[in-house]
Amino acid sequence: MNEFELINRITEILGETTQGDGVLIGPGDDAAVVTIPEGYDLVITTDTLVVGRHFPVNASGDLVGYRSIGVNLSDLAAMGAEAKYCLVSLTMPEVDELWVDAFARGILRAASRFRVAIVGGNLSRGPLSISVAAHGIVPSRGALLRSGAQPGNRIFVSGQLGSGHAALAANEQRFYMVEPRLDLGVALRGIATSAIDISDGLVADLGHICEASGVGARLLADSLPVAGGIERKQVLSCGDDYELLFTASEKPDVDEPITDIGQIVEGSGVTVVSDASLPSNVGTGYRHF
Amino acid sequence: MNEFELINRITEILGETTQGDGVLIGPGDDAAVVTIPEGYDLVITTDTLVVGRHFPVNASGDLVGYRSIGVNLSDLAAMGAEAKYCLVSLTMPEVDELWVDAFARGILRAASRFRVAIVGGNLSRGPLSISVAAHGIVPSRGALLRSGAQPGNRIFVSGQLGSGHAALAANEQRFYMVEPRLDLGVALRGIATSAIDISDGLVADLGHICEASGVGARLLADSLPVAGGIERKQVLSCGDDYELLFTASEKPDVDEPITDIGQIVEGSGVTVVSDASLPSNVGTGYRHF
Repeated sequence: MNEFELINRITEILGETTQGDGVLIGPGDDAAVVTIPEGYDLVITTDTLVVGRHFPVNASGDLVGYRSIGVNLSDLAAMGAEAKYCLVSLTMPEVDELWVDAFARGILRAASRFRVAIVGGNLSRGPLSISVAAHGIVPSRGALLRSGAQPGNRIFVSGQLGSGHAALAANEQRFYMVEPRLDLGVALRGIATSAIDISDGLVADLGHICEASGVGARLLADSLPVAGGIERKQVLSCGDDYELLFTASEKPDVDEPITDIGQIVEGSGVTVVSDASLPSNVGTGYRHF
Repeated sequence: MNEFELINRITEILGETTQGDGVLIGPGDDAAVVTIPEGYDLVITTDTLVVGRHFPVNASGDLVGYRSIGVNLSDLAAMGAEAKYCLVSLTMPEVDELWVDAFARGILRAASRFRVAIVGGNLSRGPLSISVAAHGIVPSRGALLRSGAQPGNRIFVSGQLGSGHAALAANEQRFYMVEPRLDLGVALRGIATSAIDISDGLVADLGHICEASGVGARLLADSLPVAGGIERKQVLSCGDDYELLFTASEKPDVDEPITDIGQIVEGSGVTVVSDASLPSNVGTGYRHF
């Protein structure tokens, strides 16, 4: 099976997911052509998954495909964007048709679920890795940035922390089934003063908000929504949750579960506050009170 | 040097190239935010370069960086698009600061030359490879496609064929200095009935136009603009030229040198016609008259 046959096969599996609202030219030309509605800005991001680093060599193509879309859309969610279009670049050492079929089905599953069109991509020979470029839209000048947190703002996080880490440790499928908080991101437009998705770890990512906003943060360790089977201290540093971390003047009324976990203050850096004693080394960015 | 320090260093080298007309949020947030002017469509494409496959392991970062932008913009040129924004994903086995500096300078050189903003990207650890996602704009519904060639159209090619191949064979820097024909692509809006950039090889790429357009082509081998030091038969199949191949009802009046190399006909497939005898096997898609 040569490159063109393989591309045709993938495109066939993707089916209607290669088309959709706003797609003028999908896969098959030199580039894709899409529309951006008037009054919207374009939000673009890219993330790469490398075998042996972001997934084990024996991971199923289906799960790797799903995750490669999920982690990219999580960045769009953190900007308050609606997901629209993705490009998928697959590099692999040799053509493994079964793996590629499964990979394409994983892409299809995620793309269908999150209503994003796969409008193009690239196939290369080389060590297994996947790069996705994701495209979303937000109303003009309405993107949620890291830089708008203000002293006095409360800090919120969606969902529960640590489940991604636990799934990774237990080698569970759940690790790959990243659930980008796209609806929450859209709901937070005009409400959140800053936002980020948790991929580096709670304290590290809150640190990114503090740095970009020129503020400090007091994180209430005892308030953290900790997933079952995870120790509280772990969720300060473990990444891979892909929950949204954001600041707002008060708790917003949204459909998703969110938890108040602290407050933005004058100054810089993240201070972790707890009634219980915490170990002195709980991860990057951590500073004991 | 950790990931964040390295990103800062790259962003510093890229300097003003991370900003520019239409860039609202460049590198540093969860995603970039850019604008697409009213009345324009968005053209998006991605291409990956893998060490040992698309460039040798000892290639300088500067040249690899330059080429990784050039080949992507060539796809935009083939759509008649104006280049606007790129995302650059770099995967490398370990942090080689000198190589990364040179890579960033190569990206900078190409981005400055072709007036494209580098608005974001990604760093991963893994075997050396680069994925670029390139974004351009065309007036609404004005993209040059592969699918519009009509019987009776003349076939044209820009520049000279075979120089990319010769540079590769001789391991010359010129191989990396891809010159995407962006100005020509823009000039051909509303004039070319179909267009593609030559990356797979002349006959193969003309075959893509024929297939997409449901037509055949008669290619005049004796008319081909052959670069010095290259045999005529080689240019039928060698890729890496990144010249534009296009069809039009008559020779357009453009600034760049273009050559009439044949005619679109009813039917299918590419027929190579020559006064001289040609070897029977000159490459993919070739069919002797």
